[in-house]
Amino acid sequence: MVQQERAARTRHALIQAAAAVFAEEGFVTASLSTISRRAGVSNGALHFHFANKSTLADAVEAEAAEAVRRITESARAWQGDSLQAVVDATHELMGSLARDVVVRGGFELAGDSAHRKEPSLRTQWRHWVEDSLRRAERSGALAEGVSWADSARVIVAATAGFEVLGGDDTSWLSRQNVTRFWEVVLPRLAGGPGLAALVSAGSRPPAAPSAPPPPPAGRPGP
Amino acid sequence: MVQQERAARTRHALIQAAAAVFAEEGFVTASLSTISRRAGVSNGALHFHFANKSTLADAVEAEAAEAVRRITESARAWQGDSLQAVVDATHELMGSLARDVVVRGGFELAGDSAHRKEPSLRTQWRHWVEDSLRRAERSGALAEGVSWADSARVIVAATAGFEVLGGDDTSWLSRQNVTRFWEVVLPRLAGGPGLAALVSAGSRPPAAPSAPPPPPAGRPGP
Repeated sequence: MVQQERAARTRHALIQAAAAVFAEEGFVTASLSTISRRAGVSNGALHFHFANKSTLADAVEAEAAEAVRRITESARAWQGDSLQAVVDATHELMGSLARDVVVRGGFELAGDSAHRKEPSLRTQWRHWVEDSLRRAERSGALAEGVSWADSARVIVAATAGFEVLGGDDTSWLSRQNVTRFWEVVLPRLAGGPGLAALVSAGSRPPAAPSAPPPPPAGRPGP
Repeated sequence: MVQQERAARTRHALIQAAAAVFAEEGFVTASLSTISRRAGVSNGALHFHFANKSTLADAVEAEAAEAVRRITESARAWQGDSLQAVVDATHELMGSLARDVVVRGGFELAGDSAHRKEPSLRTQWRHWVEDSLRRAERSGALAEGVSWADSARVIVAATAGFEVLGGDDTSWLSRQNVTRFWEVVLPRLAGGPGLAALVSAGSRPPAAPSAPPPPPAGRPGP
């Protein structure tokens, strides 16, 4: 049992280190020895958990995808089919990109021509935004003359922009930046009386950094 | 003279080939022999013009920066300090990203952690958008309560999004996509009477692909 816990911790440290190195250097340049050194484990331990760099990248992306899923599900559970769910989720996603190296690394891999795979995190996010805007339209939350598709286009493009610009300058990911984006865009997207109820800064207090998921059970090992 | 022309053509072919390979494979993976083969020239000819991969990437970026400068200067010459200049320039820039491999390659390099340099093309574009929105605000073209900075933020983020999403799916770069973006955003940015005069689809007919610049004089050589 102690051994299992140690293996899970090693795996977690490797994924964190790999995400950071992928985000900084790109998939091609990242070396396994840099990753294992950064994780504080031996090359042998790395190879026990991951056959090669590609499986390590897959693990980073899977963990980042899970984080994005938690963000979007929680926003919908909290705010239903309203535009507020989309506002809240963009704040949470940008906060994650700023704070959580695994989410940052996963998105960097989605934009890396050497490792690009579908469905990427960007596709996962786009589908959720489109689905949410379709729901908002059906529930009468969109302004007259504004379609779900046109609204989704603006939000998907702007959030992809925040993500890539935020790689060089994290102020693009700040709550203030995202709030001002919504202050410009919401009055155009939201139908009459609904608008007054919407909070551009997000309806939830700035989260304490979300607790990391419990370490996976992991195989027994180093 | 014939020799000078040939050298200029070779240099031009190498920059085009390098831009395409950088865009497809990223800076690290791109090999000089792939580039020279694609340009239809010998490795010796490549090395005559460019000392190494970095100088080749610099040349791609310089040529792309020149293309972006032509787009923005021409939009301002045509439309002055109005929002229409920004609308027109976004259409031209996205068209260039779709059609001109050097512009695409230059922006890919701007997002490539292995070659990132400042000022990147993204920074050049952002500065022009910010300057244009400042001018629009001074000339009274912005709606009340909307600042130049907030308007620029939305436009810079969305166009960065179009650029990166367009790398996988060129429909993000289409005139239709950019037009619908402006149809959503312009009514919020433009002040009262000015809005009616603005054309979301751009005030200029879809350009015939712009003529490539005359080949530079180039050093005499292979």
